[in-house]
Formats: sequence, C-alpha cells, structure tokens
Amino acid sequence: MVVILKENPDPKQLENLTRWLKSQDLVIHSSNGIHQTVLGLVGDTSRIDIDLIKALDIVEDVVRIQDPFKSANRKFHPLDTVVEVGPARIGGGNFALIAGPCSIESEEQICSIAEAVKKSGAAILRGGVFKPRTSPYAFQGLRAEGIKLLLEAKKATGLPVVTEIMDISQLDLFGEIDMIQVGARNMQNFELLKQLGKSDKPVLLKRGFASTIKELLMSAEYILAGGNHRVILCERGIRTFETATRNTLDLAAVPVLHNLSHLPVVVDPSHATGVAKLVEPMTMAAVAAGCDGVMIEVHNDPAHALCDGPQSILPENFDAIARRSLILREALKK
Amino acid sequence: MVVILKENPDPKQLENLTRWLKSQDLVIHSSNGIHQTVLGLVGDTSRIDIDLIKALDIVEDVVRIQDPFKSANRKFHPLDTVVEVGPARIGGGNFALIAGPCSIESEEQICSIAEAVKKSGAAILRGGVFKPRTSPYAFQGLRAEGIKLLLEAKKATGLPVVTEIMDISQLDLFGEIDMIQVGARNMQNFELLKQLGKSDKPVLLKRGFASTIKELLMSAEYILAGGNHRVILCERGIRTFETATRNTLDLAAVPVLHNLSHLPVVVDPSHATGVAKLVEPMTMAAVAAGCDGVMIEVHNDPAHALCDGPQSILPENFDAIARRSLILREALKK
Amino acid sequence: MVVILKENPDPKQLENLTRWLKSQDLVIHSSNGIHQTVLGLVGDTSRIDIDLIKALDIVEDVVRIQDPFKSANRKFHPLDTVVEVGPARIGGGNFALIAGPCSIESEEQICSIAEAVKKSGAAILRGGVFKPRTSPYAFQGLRAEGIKLLLEAKKATGLPVVTEIMDISQLDLFGEIDMIQVGARNMQNFELLKQLGKSDKPVLLKRGFASTIKELLMSAEYILAGGNHRVILCERGIRTFETATRNTLDLAAVPVLHNLSHLPVVVDPSHATGVAKLVEPMTMAAVAAGCDGVMIEVHNDPAHALCDGPQSILPENFDAIARRSLILREALKK
Amino acid sequence: MVVILKENPDPKQLENLTRWLKSQDLVIHSSNGIHQTVLGLVGDTSRIDIDLIKALDIVEDVVRIQDPFKSANRKFHPLDTVVEVGPARIGGGNFALIAGPCSIESEEQICSIAEAVKKSGAAILRGGVFKPRTSPYAFQGLRAEGIKLLLEAKKATGLPVVTEIMDISQLDLFGEIDMIQVGARNMQNFELLKQLGKSDKPVLLKRGFASTIKELLMSAEYILAGGNHRVILCERGIRTFETATRNTLDLAAVPVLHNLSHLPVVVDPSHATGVAKLVEPMTMAAVAAGCDGVMIEVHNDPAHALCDGPQSILPENFDAIARRSLILREALKK
Repeated sequence: MVVILKENPDPKQLENLTRWLKSQDLVIHSSNGIHQTVLGLVGDTSRIDIDLIKALDIVEDVVRIQDPFKSANRKFHPLDTVVEVGPARIGGGNFALIAGPCSIESEEQICSIAEAVKKSGAAILRGGVFKPRTSPYAFQGLRAEGIKLLLEAKKATGLPVVTEIMDISQLDLFGEIDMIQVGARNMQNFELLKQLGKSDKPVLLKRGFASTIKELLMSAEYILAGGNHRVILCERGIRTFETATRNTLDLAAVPVLHNLSHLPVVVDPSHATGVAKLVEPMTMAAVAAGCDGVMIEVHNDPAHALCDGPQSILPENFDAIARRSLILREALKK
Repeated sequence: MVVILKENPDPKQLENLTRWLKSQDLVIHSSNGIHQTVLGLVGDTSRIDIDLIKALDIVEDVVRIQDPFKSANRKFHPLDTVVEVGPARIGGGNFALIAGPCSIESEEQICSIAEAVKKSGAAILRGGVFKPRTSPYAFQGLRAEGIKLLLEAKKATGLPVVTEIMDISQLDLFGEIDMIQVGARNMQNFELLKQLGKSDKPVLLKRGFASTIKELLMSAEYILAGGNHRVILCERGIRTFETATRNTLDLAAVPVLHNLSHLPVVVDPSHATGVAKLVEPMTMAAVAAGCDGVMIEVHNDPAHALCDGPQSILPENFDAIARRSLILREALKK
Repeated sequence: MVVILKENPDPKQLENLTRWLKSQDLVIHSSNGIHQTVLGLVGDTSRIDIDLIKALDIVEDVVRIQDPFKSANRKFHPLDTVVEVGPARIGGGNFALIAGPCSIESEEQICSIAEAVKKSGAAILRGGVFKPRTSPYAFQGLRAEGIKLLLEAKKATGLPVVTEIMDISQLDLFGEIDMIQVGARNMQNFELLKQLGKSDKPVLLKRGFASTIKELLMSAEYILAGGNHRVILCERGIRTFETATRNTLDLAAVPVLHNLSHLPVVVDPSHATGVAKLVEPMTMAAVAAGCDGVMIEVHNDPAHALCDGPQSILPENFDAIARRSLILREALKK
Repeated sequence: MVVILKENPDPKQLENLTRWLKSQDLVIHSSNGIHQTVLGLVGDTSRIDIDLIKALDIVEDVVRIQDPFKSANRKFHPLDTVVEVGPARIGGGNFALIAGPCSIESEEQICSIAEAVKKSGAAILRGGVFKPRTSPYAFQGLRAEGIKLLLEAKKATGLPVVTEIMDISQLDLFGEIDMIQVGARNMQNFELLKQLGKSDKPVLLKRGFASTIKELLMSAEYILAGGNHRVILCERGIRTFETATRNTLDLAAVPVLHNLSHLPVVVDPSHATGVAKLVEPMTMAAVAAGCDGVMIEVHNDPAHALCDGPQSILPENFDAIARRSLILREALKK
C-alpha cells in the first residue's frame, strides 16, 4: 500500500498517522520528492480500511499495490479452480449449463423440467424455494416443501441441484442440496457468508446488483477465508439508468474476474435481462466472453409461472440454446 | 391496476392472461378503444408481480393505480406516525438528533462521547457493535461485548440507544436496546425484516445504496405487515458514478417519502458523504429539506477511530451543528 | 397514448387537460372503470411531451402505445437497413470491421496501420482528427491536417474512411470522408444532428454514455427526419458505478436495438472497456450478440500513442481478432 | 503526479515510459521501496492523459497531486469569484434568484412573468428560446423570435436576462443577452466552450447529467483558459437508477465545488426533480447547503405551458419560496 501525502503535511498529523500505521504492524518506507512525500507500507495491509486513511486531511491519495482479497487472488493461485458439483465440473475449461424454473411449484413441474433440461445437456438443475420478493404480499416460495420436491427431481434425473438460501436458519434444510446459491441481495450478508465459509458445499455467489467486481471478490473472500474453497462467481446484471432491460448485464466482468481471480465465473442472462427473447443472444455473448457456465430459467409454461415467468424460456428454446452454446464453444477453440 | 394491451393481441394469449388474472381473485373491466384495449383490474393487486404481466407478448404496459405498500401508504394513513424511542420522539413535527461513534471501542470512549452529545442536544445515542465490513480481515466490531458497553453508556446518560443488527441470530442480544438499526446492505434481507415485524421495538430502516424509494417503502411494509408499526426510514446516500463523495445523498427522497408515506424520515450525512467537512452543510440541507432527524457520527479522536474515522466529527463540531440545526428549524417555521 | 387518471380527478383540471389535448389535434376516447378513468388518445402523439402530462396532479401515469421514433421504428420498416460506406456494406446480414488509430499522428502512422488492418480484413478505416478531450490542455487532434492524412491513407489503400465531427462548422472539411461519426458527447447535440439530416453521407451515431437505448433512437430520428436514412448506431458503453472498466459495455443493447429498429448496430469494445486485453473477449461477445460490425482501435505502438494508447491493440492482435470474428460468425449461422 | 509501478516491472517497458514522460517535459524522481517503485513527476502534468499511463502493463496506479484544472482551482485563486450579470452579483456572499419560464411563448407571457418574479425579488430573468428536445417532432423553441421577446421583457423590467445557447452559429443573436447558458447536454461540447472562452459575457455552465464534479470543473476550465473568467457553475441533478424524480439532485456538489473552486455555484431544483411540489423543499435545501443562487422555473399557468409545465411553479408559489429563502439565509448567518 502506498500513501501519497499532500504538500507540506502538518507534522503533528503525520506523526499521528505514522504511529497508527505502526500500531497496525506495518513497516513504513518514506520517500521524499520535491513536491510530495510517499509512504510505502510493507506488511499485511488487507485489514487496513483504505477509506479511513484517504479521508485524512494530510493525505492526497492511497493506492493498494495488492488487492485485499488473498485467497481469491489469481496472483497467489495462478491455476484455475475447478468446482465439482456432484458429477458436474465448472471452471478450468469445464463448462456447465445450469437450468430450471425460477420457482418450484409442484413435483410434476420440477420433474418434467428436470427431465427436459437434462436431455438438452444441462449439468445442474436449479429451482427456487426460498424467494426474495420485494413485496411481503407476493408468493414467498414453497420453502421446506420445495426442497423436498427439488430432491425428488434430483433422484429422478441424477442431476445435482442448486437453490438459494436466504438466511442462516435455513441451512439445516440444505443437507442434500449439492450447491448453495447466495442471491444478489445477500452478497454482502456477511454473517451468512461466514457460515458458508464453514460449510463443505459449493457456493454459487451472485454479484449484488450495485456491487463492484472487487466487492464481489471480497465477498468470495469471506467464504474462502472460512476454509471453503468451492466458490463459483455469478454475473447477473447491475443496476443502471437503462430501463429497456431489468438490469445491465456486465459481460466484461467475465474476463476481468478471470484476470483477477482463479474462481469459475457463471453468467445468468435470465435475471439480467428479464426478457425471454434476450436470453439466447446474451447466452451466446456470455459464452463468447469466456464464461465457465450459464444459468438459465426454464419453465414448461411461462405464461402460468407464479413468478418471473416472462423471462423464462420453454424447454424447446433451451434445447436450441444448449445446442448453439456447444457449437460456439467449439468454434472458440479454433 | 391497469393493463394496456398491444394492438390486435393474440386471442389465445389474451384468454390465458384473463384466466390467470381471474384465478388471482381479480375482477376485470375491459374497455376497448380503437387502437387499444385496456384491462382495469379490481381487487387486491398487491400480490401481483407487475413485471410478470409486463413481459407478456400481448402487453404494452402495466400501471399500478395503487402503490403495493398499504400499511406504509399515506393515502390510507394520512396522519404522520410518531415513533417513540425511549423518551425521544421522531416524526409528526418532532425532530431528533442521533449521534455517536461508528464503532464502539471501549467503555471510556462510548461514555465520554455519550455525555458530550447529550449535552449538545442529541436525543438518541448510536454506536456500532456488529460491523458490516467489505473485507473479512477488517475489524468486525466488539459484538456482544459492545452491546454491554453501549448499555453502560445508556445507564450513565439516560439516552436511548440504537445499534445495527446483522443477522436474526443476534436478536436475543437486543433486549435492552431501544431501537434496532437495519443497515443499507440488509434492507432487502427479507427474513430479517419478517422477524423484526414480530418485534415490539422501533426499527431504523436504512435505504439500500442501490434501492429505489419505493423499494425502501416495500421493505418497511415487510415490518409493518408483521404487526410492528414503529418504523423510521433513513436516507443515507445512493451509489452513482460520482466519486467525490462516498455516495450521493438523495435529499429529494425526504419530501418524496413524506408525500408517499406517514413514516418519519431521518438522514445520515456521515455515511452518505464519507467526508467530515461535508457533514455540516449536508445536515443543514437535510433539515431544510424537512427531515425528522439526522444521524451523525461523532468521535472523540477521528484520526484514531478503528473505522470510518475520517467521516466522523469531534464533539465540538457536533455541538455547532446541533445549535445551527435548531436555529434553522426555527427559521423554517416562519 | 393512454392517460390513466387518479381516482376522483378534479373536474376543472380534467377539463383543462381535455381542452389542451384537443388543441394538439388528438381525439380522446374516455373509458370509465369503477376506480379509474382512462383516456385513450388517437392522433399524432409524437409531439406530445409525456412528462408534461405525467406531472399533472390528476394523472396517475401515461403510457405510450407507439414509440415516438417513427422513421427508426422497425414496426413501420420491418426490413433491415443496409448502409453502404464506399464499397463496404453494414446491416442486413453484412458485417464489417472498422479499425484504425484513436488519433491520427502522421502520414506514416495512418498509412501503415491502414495497410495492416486492410490485410487483416477491415472494411473501413477509422482515425480521429478532431478529438473531444476532457482537458483544454490535452492534445486536441491534428484537425484539418489530420483529414488530409486520412484521405492519403484512403487513396493508398482504397479503404473508405470514417472520422468524428465535433461541430457543424467543421462539416466543410468532410467532403471526401465516407462516413461521419457523431461521438457519445454529441449524441444530443441536436443542431448538429439536424445538419447531418440534410447531408447525404452515412452517419455513425454513438450512444451517449448516459443515454438510454430509446434516446439513442430519438437522436437517430433527428437525422432520419431530415431526410438522411444512412444511420448506423453504435453501442460504446454506459457510465455506471463500476470502475474496473472505463464504461460498462451494454451488449443487450444489440438485440434490443435490433428488435426496436431496422438500423444497423455496431459495437466499440475499445472505448467501452479502455483496457487492451478486454478488446478481444468483448469483440467475440459483441459478434455473438449479433452486431453488424465492430469498431476497434489499432495502433502500431500503443505505448507511444498520443491518446487512448492503453486501449489500443497492435496490428497482429487485430489480425487474430479479425480471424476469430470470422470463425465465430460462421459458427453462429449453424 | 505520482506513478506507482507494479512489482518487478519489465525494464524495456519502464524505459519506454521514462523516455515518453521526459519527452513531455517532465522531470522524474524515482523512489524505490522494497516492493514497489514510485515515480514522482515534476512539471506541467495538466496535458498528461492519466488513463493512458494507468493502462500500461507495468503501472499499478497513477495519482494526480494537482487537479488538472488550474484556472478554476481554489488553491491558486483562494478568493471567491463574484460574477456580475448586469446589476446582479453572484458569488462571494452575493446570492441571486434566477427565475422565468422554461420556454418563452409570447410577449405577454414573458413580460407578465418577468414583472411578477421581479416583484418577488428575482435578480435575473430566465427564459428558453432554443430548446434541446429529445424528439425532433417536439416544439424546438421560438429561437430568434424568442430572443426578441426576452429582450422586450428585459427592457420592460430592467432585469438582466439569461438564455441557453445550443450551437456556436447562434452566438450572434446573443449580443444583448446578459448571460449565456450552456445546457447539461452541451457541457462537453468543447468547440462551443472554446468559443465562449473568447466571449466577454458571463456563462452559466450546467453540469452534464452524467458528468462528475471534476469534469464540470474541466469544462469550466475550457472557458477560463480562453480568457473568459465569468463562469457560474450549476448543479441540476445527475442520472441515477431512481425514477421518483427526473434526476437526482446532488447537493453535496455545492460544498464540494466550493472547496475545489472559487467559482460561484447555482442550483436548479426545477429540472433536477421535474416535480413542482419538490421545488420548494429542494430550494430550501440548496440554500442551506450554501449555494450562491437558485434557478427556478416560473410559469403563469403550468397546465398550459408548452413544455416542462409540470415542474414549473406559479408566481405566487415563487413569491413564497423567495421570501422563505431570504429568512433561511438570514438564519444561516447566525
């Protein structure tokens, strides 16, 4: 970390800063130019709040030389992490399609979709049971009952399953679930992340819709720091001024995350766009951007889905998307 | 709710939509213009997902006539809600200053600040014990120990106290805390909101940094719908492209919230700006915009605060701000 | 256009609104439901300011049934527009690579790059001569002299050329330029757009970095309404809170624009990301999203470019990108 | 300017960078820490494109010690600039209300409003004649005819007048106009700014709705660098995800601009919010935040205004706002 001081810093404040930095077990290398003094800090700066120092009167700016995420950092772990979810593998050249309905509604619904997406090549089945809904009066998901139905579909198809957790107290219900999803609204639910750091299950961590790429990596770091190294990152759109799509899918996040981190990156074009006919082109674009997987909402009858129906696609649409994804991935190898 | 159909809607899809709407216990009044058909829906539309219908092929747009927040809605509760926090009152013409350190560090620290801000006119003492930190390696707060220290300061000064909860599991520790704060990152932690709806304590609900004003009201609705009507809303800045301040303080939210809702509105200029010297002008602006209270970070030595120090102000600065707020409020009555 | 009134609208205000709407040559079809009245407006509503009506006390909401862009609208022009730029064709299945340096610096520079990108398959040569720079002290481009050098390169290679105009007064210099670029900062320079509407040259219209997709189409409409139908739209990233890339490339804009309009859509990954190593993956993603062309900055020595160097790529990088784009486009046809 | 290099920079690239920096007439002071090398640059760095250097492979980050705006910088001009607009004065403790209709429609309209706002204490009359409209089919203003009407109102009341310019070619019509307004969409119309730098008239420069505070100052610098020092900055809201108001009024920009620059700062609550009933509270908030003036749209009959009507207020509303602004300003002096 490098601290650049303003011209002619107040000596009393500089002494305060220096003393505080030393109390944080940092060694200070000061270099004095004609117009500015620069403090180079050596030691473990990951605990240091950069904003704190930046806001001091005598400080012009602070620059991190090392990103504060250590376990997620590609610098220290150059090889791609491969996450196994049941028999499926994601990352390090392994690509997986994750598919299923937004909400699980009935055994018949989840099982028929599971069969269909498996046939089309999906490697993992998704289905929501705890639903984060803006309105308290909206359908909140089948909850424990939904978990049971999802596990029925797992048994029937052999597909590993992923579903979203909304609170630590629900963790007991996830015993046979293969991967735990943390939704965008919970990306900075740090108590939940700490608990998942103690779990041995893969975690699918969605980017908050107003979180930066580095904040996503810091949230992953919470899980990794707890000892759980099976984290998959998910880009699902960020909130901007544009209203033509529900969110703005930030596909540059895919190569940026791959540059910064060794963790696999998955893209969710369904929630990002909120528009069914954009799912196919955005899946193609995500694959071309180099992602390790795509998560797509598939429903057997979008018009009747209890939630998020319009962004869902039918099994036959999914089949075409899966087929074209494969062709694209082959072409990209050339 | 009004559904505007596209020209020449597919009859099969229209029939599907109509059937589904009726299954939601809604009565449909159809009116046919030359170029468009409009469906007026009568009944309880608060459970209806507007995005679902909007995304159908045959639908041009959907307009809610009634906002989906009922309990928070001024239309149905024209009188201002006054929330009592110990002896303090907020809303309905009652204004309160909430002050204290970002993080509680020691008994001496919290007690000396408490004495100082009480003398300057603060009505409620704040102090963080569970700290939502971006980095897992940063100081996470004194937690249970901090609660004890905060209660010491309460006993010593008689000031009611507010502190942030980060997870349902911490709720047991809040028995003697006078008001529970829900931080920006947890504004859509719906499971937490549901629990707080069963509590009898006032809740200070901060706006998420990427949440709209209506989403804030929907989150308040979660608490109100559970039976707890003691909710105070807090504007604390939203995330934008501007980097001169940590967030962009959206002061228009104050009169907008007052127009839409009967709940009191408090402003946090410390976190919104992240810059100590902006706290005074933004406090003045917040008071002039008509807010019911201001929450300010006060520290006895900003340079040594363990977190968020640079945005804190010293007790003597707070004293000046408190005095000027009072003068301003008097002037605004003219 | 449909105007939805609030419950029990003030009769005097309703009469005012009705009179004003009639004065705009609109026919009003009123339909009265139990809880709301809806006014259907028939006639040319493209001149109506929707915000004006929306803000009236008696109005709940206003919904446009028809987008206010008529000439750019696919509804009225279902076939793809193909724009010819010299021998190059863009749109309607025709794909073109546009390449060249950010700024033209010397005859040798522009000619050598032109030769190189032509060999790799670029169909159009780009090169900046009027440079919109944030700082008045930064290099402002070679201006008239740069136009001459660009035309030398055109003569030497036979490639059609495109460069940015910054003010109407520069138009005389564009006589032999094949396509006129309107930069993001000028997307709503309406006087300039009107002048270009009278031109017979193709216009490459870049999306403003804080403009919505519909605003881009409204700006295109200014040119089309003037009689010039040779407009190419360009997505080049929007401004968001994310700082890992210079802007956030909104690739969903490609299919959204194709759905709304018949005009060709080109993507600029160089300016969107501002990072050289992201140009290739974002070019691939743009092609997969279905764009009609990609505009890439190519420099013979990025480290020495006078401006925007770090986002430029070398001719050999461009050659690889061009080759892979072709493979991708072939794969997408399957 | 300080350039912080990555660990173990490539020697060849470092040599390239060093040579280029020297070619820019900069002296380099290199300081080598254990883990990083820092280059301190001495000389005129205002011409240097910081993004260019930041994007080099060997560079970790670049920090400007001095802001690139020199003439607008308070560091070099500590005293407040006072701008005279006819008999009115803005800045350095002088406060002015600017009021008038969005669009000038008729002599009767502009003159009656002028009389009214003068009586209420407005110091400057505003009125739009060239209107930047999103749609080419919307009313584009009375243009030259409108200028004449505005000057009639000036003659009748003695109030100095301000109106917006949209293109350099219109400049000749501004001979008797007292202050030239540059709209948000033209804040980075650099050719226009250069021309205004050669003018001797005051310029009211509005912040672009997606421009940072520092970009606003860079645009002011274009005018100042040309020799025209009579620049007034105007905060008018920025584009965010929030839709309850047309834009998000960034009131922290007022003290931030006052800290960075000596130029006066005016606030436009009418365009920022787009909602008439928010104009009064936001005017009060702007005054409390310390602005040097407020610009308010006033119409004699909002419901019939040709544009922007709903955000206008009537003369009697303006009178109350003017009176309360005065009371507030007096209270703030205490």
